[in-house]
Amino acid sequence: MYIKTIAWFAIACASAWGQPAGDSKPASTNVMGAQYPRVHPDLRATFQLKAPEAKLVQVRLGQTYDMVRADDGVWTVTIPPQVPGFHYYSLVVDSVAVNDPGSEAFYGTSRQSSGIEIPEKDADYYEVQAVPHGEVRQIRYFSKVTGAWRRAFVYTPPGYDLNPKLRYPVLYLQHGGGEDERGWTVQGRADIILDNLIDRKQAVPMLIVMDKGYAVMAGEKPYVRAPGEPFDMRRLSSLPAFEKVVVDDLIPAIDARYRTLPDRDHRAMAGLSMGGGQTFEIVLHNLDKFAYVGGFSGVPGGNGGPVINTKTDFNGVLADAQAFNKRMKLVWIGTGTAEPAPMYKGMQGFREAITNAGIRHIYIESEGTSHEWLTWRRALHDFAPRLFKEAK
Amino acid sequence: MYIKTIAWFAIACASAWGQPAGDSKPASTNVMGAQYPRVHPDLRATFQLKAPEAKLVQVRLGQTYDMVRADDGVWTVTIPPQVPGFHYYSLVVDSVAVNDPGSEAFYGTSRQSSGIEIPEKDADYYEVQAVPHGEVRQIRYFSKVTGAWRRAFVYTPPGYDLNPKLRYPVLYLQHGGGEDERGWTVQGRADIILDNLIDRKQAVPMLIVMDKGYAVMAGEKPYVRAPGEPFDMRRLSSLPAFEKVVVDDLIPAIDARYRTLPDRDHRAMAGLSMGGGQTFEIVLHNLDKFAYVGGFSGVPGGNGGPVINTKTDFNGVLADAQAFNKRMKLVWIGTGTAEPAPMYKGMQGFREAITNAGIRHIYIESEGTSHEWLTWRRALHDFAPRLFKEAK
Repeated sequence: MYIKTIAWFAIACASAWGQPAGDSKPASTNVMGAQYPRVHPDLRATFQLKAPEAKLVQVRLGQTYDMVRADDGVWTVTIPPQVPGFHYYSLVVDSVAVNDPGSEAFYGTSRQSSGIEIPEKDADYYEVQAVPHGEVRQIRYFSKVTGAWRRAFVYTPPGYDLNPKLRYPVLYLQHGGGEDERGWTVQGRADIILDNLIDRKQAVPMLIVMDKGYAVMAGEKPYVRAPGEPFDMRRLSSLPAFEKVVVDDLIPAIDARYRTLPDRDHRAMAGLSMGGGQTFEIVLHNLDKFAYVGGFSGVPGGNGGPVINTKTDFNGVLADAQAFNKRMKLVWIGTGTAEPAPMYKGMQGFREAITNAGIRHIYIESEGTSHEWLTWRRALHDFAPRLFKEAK
Repeated sequence: MYIKTIAWFAIACASAWGQPAGDSKPASTNVMGAQYPRVHPDLRATFQLKAPEAKLVQVRLGQTYDMVRADDGVWTVTIPPQVPGFHYYSLVVDSVAVNDPGSEAFYGTSRQSSGIEIPEKDADYYEVQAVPHGEVRQIRYFSKVTGAWRRAFVYTPPGYDLNPKLRYPVLYLQHGGGEDERGWTVQGRADIILDNLIDRKQAVPMLIVMDKGYAVMAGEKPYVRAPGEPFDMRRLSSLPAFEKVVVDDLIPAIDARYRTLPDRDHRAMAGLSMGGGQTFEIVLHNLDKFAYVGGFSGVPGGNGGPVINTKTDFNGVLADAQAFNKRMKLVWIGTGTAEPAPMYKGMQGFREAITNAGIRHIYIESEGTSHEWLTWRRALHDFAPRLFKEAK
């Protein structure tokens, strides 16, 4: 009978299903069946697009590389070895940056972008292993602050449903500017990282809550970027509205729905890039609610803003370092060694300021990575095991 | 202090953030902040793309429409009123079909495609309402059949975690060819439809399990489409491997992890297009496991395959209509009145065959819709309330 189940609507797309190139393999970030882009053992990558009518087709991945047209209208290029990890990229057809039909889509750079995963040797902590797996749950909750329903994702650790009496600590984890609440699981693989850490007993079982780091107070107008202008990151980062959402709406919703340990000793917040800046603002304004804080390539003043004043900023909570160090169980900051200079220097400015003020903290660098997801996977992989240990 | 949280990495993209057009509104399917595409009150839609170097830019939405270039290199077109519901579309830049940077991405047509939601008057059953909301959970389970970990999504109804003694019936719900396990919640809004039906007491609380309808037996080679060729839908539909995954791996995994009612009287399966064909194959081969079956624009022989033989196909289970009608609680089929002829006719062939054989069934048409998601939202909205009622 299977022969009768043969033919439904499928639209073939002019795309990246050509012949393989040598001992390369389709990128793990490709859509099902797509043979391009491909990654070579030496980490070069080959891209391909059929575009018979185009004048020029390019790949934009950090740099911009011209592709070469064959007689059949298929453009191809192999680019030099890439740094391992996840990179956003675009194909550029006659000056228009477009998605590669061979790639999955990843919400970043404020649009659905193509992405390519370059394999990292001996790194299995963000790959799906034969271990118990938690769940990633999409929830909806009503925000009184914004007057609207919001969507968030909640990672529940393996066994959450099997231990109906156990209560869990919670990490609030934020994405970067131009990304959203999907980023930490889709690009960041936070759920897989925690599944593996928990299985190896390197991290305690915890919930992770990932919300959208944008908010507009009820009755106010949403921020819309003017035509052709870059984002105003101050407005994009949505403070103070987002802080109010987290404190007044999100935390109460999570504590009401999940078996949490609803106190500051069992609540952490971390974020990357814009999310790191938001995180420090929110945590330092609400020390009664959080005992752990992390900034992954993102801190107040992290990229072009003025360096913080540890005497007066954040209502002066950093001024008495001894009291602050006693109260906070962890301040974690980190960055990639290959980050663009303004970001790297911004982080160093913050680090120097809190060091000079006597604030106890951990500072970790990710070797060779830029302002991108492998830096942040590594950050989470270092950060999560430091959480909630003494609280067990 | 907010002033210091200003500047992180955001990549501006040359795209669809121009000036609004009249009393139109950005489509609800747009990415955050994107002003184009826009939908007009009369359901016309306006598209825009900046492409100064392109020779020709078009919109492909059913038909292909040429866009008009302004002096600033921005191309625009307003297309005639569209049928309400969700439609996949592409922009075409110098003959290459690409994503609209203003649109979210939706896995369909075997790639990440742009999509546009055209509002439907007086239809609120697939909009988020002020009602209790269930969760959509991403799970991973190991398949012995394929020898690999698989991802599926599970809708749990409102209150699932609050009623730890209650057990629930389960609907297995499949996507169409070129789509995957994300389709039913992202494009289909199955979770929202059930939240609303349950709140109105029109459907009983149930779980919905949405898996990827593709599978390759362990040790066998995955199906890869030859360059330039359309999909071989028989191979894409993955039978018999997918049937074995459902029966041997998926159902046991769900019954082990969730508080299900693990018998045939509390288990349904339905699918759309290719998923409808798969569903009938799987259910009719496994009548001991399912008591309800639904085919939404998809049945065996539904599009070009031979009409079924009700005497001999499916091990002859349809030959004794009286026995079959006694055993099955529901056979539901339906289609859109505007579907392409082969699909519409294929459905009629199946309908005629089971009618002539005396098989009791429900047949419902979706007025004015084609082979697309509004047809299937309507199908689910009619189908789900008929499930598990007497089993309560």
